[in-house]
Amino acid sequence: MTEHKIINGFSKLDRLQKIEWLVEQLNLDEVTADFLNSFQLAEQSVQNIIADLSENHLSNYHLPFSVAPNFVVDDKVITFPLVTEESSVVAALAKAAGYWAKRGGFHSKIIGTEKKGQVHFSWSGKPEKIFRSFPELKKQLEQEAAPLTQNMEKRGGGITAITLKHLPEIIPNYYQLDVSFETCEAMGANFINSCLEQFGKTLKSWVQTNDEFQAEEKETDVIMAILSNYVPNSRVKVWVECPVEELESDAEKAHAFALKLVQAVHISRHDVSRAVTHNKGIFNGIDALAIATGNDFRAIEAGGHAYAASSGQYRGLSDAGITNGKFWFSLELPLAVGVVGGVTSLHPLAKLTMAILGQPTASQLMGYLAVAGLASNWSAVRALVTSGIQQGHMKMHLSNILNSLHVSDEQKRAARLYFQDRGVSYSEVQNYLNEHAK
Amino acid sequence: MTEHKIINGFSKLDRLQKIEWLVEQLNLDEVTADFLNSFQLAEQSVQNIIADLSENHLSNYHLPFSVAPNFVVDDKVITFPLVTEESSVVAALAKAAGYWAKRGGFHSKIIGTEKKGQVHFSWSGKPEKIFRSFPELKKQLEQEAAPLTQNMEKRGGGITAITLKHLPEIIPNYYQLDVSFETCEAMGANFINSCLEQFGKTLKSWVQTNDEFQAEEKETDVIMAILSNYVPNSRVKVWVECPVEELESDAEKAHAFALKLVQAVHISRHDVSRAVTHNKGIFNGIDALAIATGNDFRAIEAGGHAYAASSGQYRGLSDAGITNGKFWFSLELPLAVGVVGGVTSLHPLAKLTMAILGQPTASQLMGYLAVAGLASNWSAVRALVTSGIQQGHMKMHLSNILNSLHVSDEQKRAARLYFQDRGVSYSEVQNYLNEHAK
Repeated sequence: MTEHKIINGFSKLDRLQKIEWLVEQLNLDEVTADFLNSFQLAEQSVQNIIADLSENHLSNYHLPFSVAPNFVVDDKVITFPLVTEESSVVAALAKAAGYWAKRGGFHSKIIGTEKKGQVHFSWSGKPEKIFRSFPELKKQLEQEAAPLTQNMEKRGGGITAITLKHLPEIIPNYYQLDVSFETCEAMGANFINSCLEQFGKTLKSWVQTNDEFQAEEKETDVIMAILSNYVPNSRVKVWVECPVEELESDAEKAHAFALKLVQAVHISRHDVSRAVTHNKGIFNGIDALAIATGNDFRAIEAGGHAYAASSGQYRGLSDAGITNGKFWFSLELPLAVGVVGGVTSLHPLAKLTMAILGQPTASQLMGYLAVAGLASNWSAVRALVTSGIQQGHMKMHLSNILNSLHVSDEQKRAARLYFQDRGVSYSEVQNYLNEHAK
Repeated sequence: MTEHKIINGFSKLDRLQKIEWLVEQLNLDEVTADFLNSFQLAEQSVQNIIADLSENHLSNYHLPFSVAPNFVVDDKVITFPLVTEESSVVAALAKAAGYWAKRGGFHSKIIGTEKKGQVHFSWSGKPEKIFRSFPELKKQLEQEAAPLTQNMEKRGGGITAITLKHLPEIIPNYYQLDVSFETCEAMGANFINSCLEQFGKTLKSWVQTNDEFQAEEKETDVIMAILSNYVPNSRVKVWVECPVEELESDAEKAHAFALKLVQAVHISRHDVSRAVTHNKGIFNGIDALAIATGNDFRAIEAGGHAYAASSGQYRGLSDAGITNGKFWFSLELPLAVGVVGGVTSLHPLAKLTMAILGQPTASQLMGYLAVAGLASNWSAVRALVTSGIQQGHMKMHLSNILNSLHVSDEQKRAARLYFQDRGVSYSEVQNYLNEHAK
């Protein structure tokens, strides 16, 4: 059934031909083309933008575009646009925002904005020799990259450091040009990769023409030149804090709740099984805002999770404690994001997202993303140590099942009443509908 | 400008009222409501499904729904539906698929499907005492969870192990019920969390009523009960292999290429800066297929990256080598995914995705996701060690810039010609258009 043949030149077909081929090969329903077309946008110029983001575009995949209001960040009130397919993420963020708005809001602090990249190469010769000549090489690298960096320099960014590293423990004769960048309001991937590829070329010719080098020293093999998504020095810290007794209307309850929440966060910092899910909850919030802004969530996730493992043990990224009667809850993580260029400047709803956020700088956006992560984490851990998360999830689960079974609004209401104090599963709901509603 | 006020009861407003509030508070363009409405679906029943996935829904965020044909996986030819906003990911997958289709295709092997979860609790008493009574507790746990597990058991799944762990190095008196599950075709989050929350209740009452326990031994504090997204024993391995000389038409080039690719992969296994970006590229493919199937990419990312750090050093997840003249390239990672329930059974294009994939089992889908990751990784590393990635990226970059500047098709063609051998940046393109095209 799925054994359709290999096709050559598929990318050259137009969209409808691609769909036709697919329907034919897979014996899909004949209405599939109409079905796919129904998800396209009527406005062709906007549709083209979505289609051109990727290749072999057949249609548009719709995700809910939502908002969570009431985020107080560094004394500003902000609404977060969010894109997620997961039930209760937006509700969790909105709840956390409203809760903390009454308790001083979220605070953020940028710890750094250094982006990184490497030229990986091998060179046969005495390491001292290349290290001795390195200042000269560095000058050459900067000089030959100047046409690429001049615009970024005008904006206050550019190449901020170039270091030569010898790493024979990885591969004999293996070196890195380890390069630091400041990319201002851009994520900077294209800028960084262009500079690094130029560095690779400069390195090769410099080694070849260097009078100090003889014979095989004149040869270098550039293995690859590429930015790194590991950006531990492009980091932001966000936190909330308030007197313990303000956490709940009842002071005794507030103390018990604070202790339990601190325990739960402590567990996430020492137990990997818990740490992974704890951080997953953090990224529920971060990714939802990242997608809305057109930023690349795979880059954010990879850098964040690797940072979580930087001590040698994979840990929860947030921390909590009680200091001098004050409860605090914080999150510190690396983020490399842009507010110009890429999908952010292209996707119509990413542009609206930036307007809703008040056209933030890249540093402000780092703060907002981390706040979204901490807010998501807060609501998840709070639910876990109090009512458990299933109460809320089961309501969502029931809604989803009812939607998938295409029942009427009246049947939905009746089913919600019936399952109020009963376990929800697909078969249970189906049984109920078979017996009661049809 | 963004200083809009705190709002109470926002979630109770209907969609248009929410938009109205937003426009008012932020002084957004008056056409914003029409603009947001233009991304909604005409078919109300389908629109409701998208809206109901999340909360505070205002509109739909469109991502390109694409396909990459020609994946040969365990001798079956499959087309992968992909959802990504990143240029060249789909092209990279399609290229890798076509390349390996001619060289035996991709192979997959399921290493396990064990899902996990924990009840975290504290108990004051001699550890021996609770360990001695544990078999009895276990019986009770299974018995009281039976109504929840019977349907899953009918499908061949259920609870497969319950272990008691004492972890005083984390918190004094801290224990875990560490539980293993088999969830068959479902990702199982709801099932697992329901079982664990029931376990928490059973545990509490069992401790209270246990005759062996006295005084403070009768009290237990359930800190939280929750599934883990760390699933190292729900793992899949995928790989490609072929004689080295078949990698390229020229045998000498093939050997040089194989060595360089193996070197690049080796670096990713030992250098964290490279490992993060290497794995980011893997998840470019995995997430694109995961989103298309309605699976939760945050869960996949968190579990995968933590697994990458499980040795104590964060490493690249793929591996490559040359053994007896054969080049091999493999990826092994944990995945917990479902083919029924959740967004997969709700989202209209996720349902179509499952049809295009031939209604795979959860195990088959694990294989496909890993194949998407390996394919993405292959194309990225291949480009890096040969032409560099900027060549392809710059083409995309130019297209994106031209789209954002709303130029005519004719101007686009001229600009592409002009920038064929020139560096691309937003300002360079703008300069060019100012001088040549207006």
